[in-house]
Amino acid sequence: MVAQERSARTRQRLVHAAAVEIDENGYERATLTRICKYAQLSIGALTFHFNSKRDLADAVRADARALTNDRMKQVAHGHAPGLDCLIHLTGELAHLLETEVVVRSAARLERDCPGDGGWLESWLPAVRCLLREAQRSEELRPGVDPQVMTALAVHLVTGAETFARASAGGADPHLPAVATQLERMWEVVLRGAVATP
Amino acid sequence: MVAQERSARTRQRLVHAAAVEIDENGYERATLTRICKYAQLSIGALTFHFNSKRDLADAVRADARALTNDRMKQVAHGHAPGLDCLIHLTGELAHLLETEVVVRSAARLERDCPGDGGWLESWLPAVRCLLREAQRSEELRPGVDPQVMTALAVHLVTGAETFARASAGGADPHLPAVATQLERMWEVVLRGAVATP
Repeated sequence: MVAQERSARTRQRLVHAAAVEIDENGYERATLTRICKYAQLSIGALTFHFNSKRDLADAVRADARALTNDRMKQVAHGHAPGLDCLIHLTGELAHLLETEVVVRSAARLERDCPGDGGWLESWLPAVRCLLREAQRSEELRPGVDPQVMTALAVHLVTGAETFARASAGGADPHLPAVATQLERMWEVVLRGAVATP
Repeated sequence: MVAQERSARTRQRLVHAAAVEIDENGYERATLTRICKYAQLSIGALTFHFNSKRDLADAVRADARALTNDRMKQVAHGHAPGLDCLIHLTGELAHLLETEVVVRSAARLERDCPGDGGWLESWLPAVRCLLREAQRSEELRPGVDPQVMTALAVHLVTGAETFARASAGGADPHLPAVATQLERMWEVVLRGAVATP
């Protein structure tokens, strides 16, 4: 293994360890000591790659954005723009939150240090765009405001983050996956909850 | 003012200051020094009333539960059980999250230290009960699972917490109140989002 490749792997191990630590304890509580312990690397190795905890957090955010952008592109590729695509997109976000600690960690960073930009910006513009498209094509019921739908989507994904963290922490294994739960909620939202509107 | 009353007021000031600090910085980052500074009281006054930061957090939670229980009872009193009552109930929660720092703080504590019991338990049973009632009275569309609706309500309130914190932090004053936003989302959820289901 060439030195460069080894260095990249070490860096990746540190970012993963930082994500685990931030997801579990939040940015402020995260310690470099625990990150090194998770990564099975020395503090020297850490400081060779990252100047500070903030640097590590930025790397976590960048990885999460890259992963999310990639998944968003795949979804957009496989579905015509509109509500079906939106549901697949939020389902992918829920799945990422459940399975990728780096994404869960970036979502927590977004809450812990709001205004820093980051994960939300890797999917929110796509959600907005799909909802405008759904309105233009009259897929949305007349009178349904795309902005309200966008807020609803953000609320659902925010809720999914909380559920995903609980489920990653070893919640009831009989509960359905976060993405499945989200899909059921969308089904209600699309068709309506009441018998006689 | 008798000594007892003065002591109760001092205690209340400390709980309020702790709520402000926890809402802003989370439980782990919260410091007793800052809490004393907000309360304009000495560390001696604090330790006279509370043994530890955990004690203060428990007092915040207890206040939030009391406030929420009280509001939930008022809502239940003014509305027949069913979806209309549910919407008023979550609207009250959003309003509490936006206006009462002690409630916002308790909601944050619930996330920071999950499994501790607390705020969620002061309203979730009511939500479950109202949805079972809506199913029984066939107000819910056949096939809509009350459990999915409960999860949806929890997601919406979780999202409202995030919005409420941003709005308390001085977000765009032109944005509608969190409770109003939530009401608009429920309107979509109840009637459905698509033109042709």
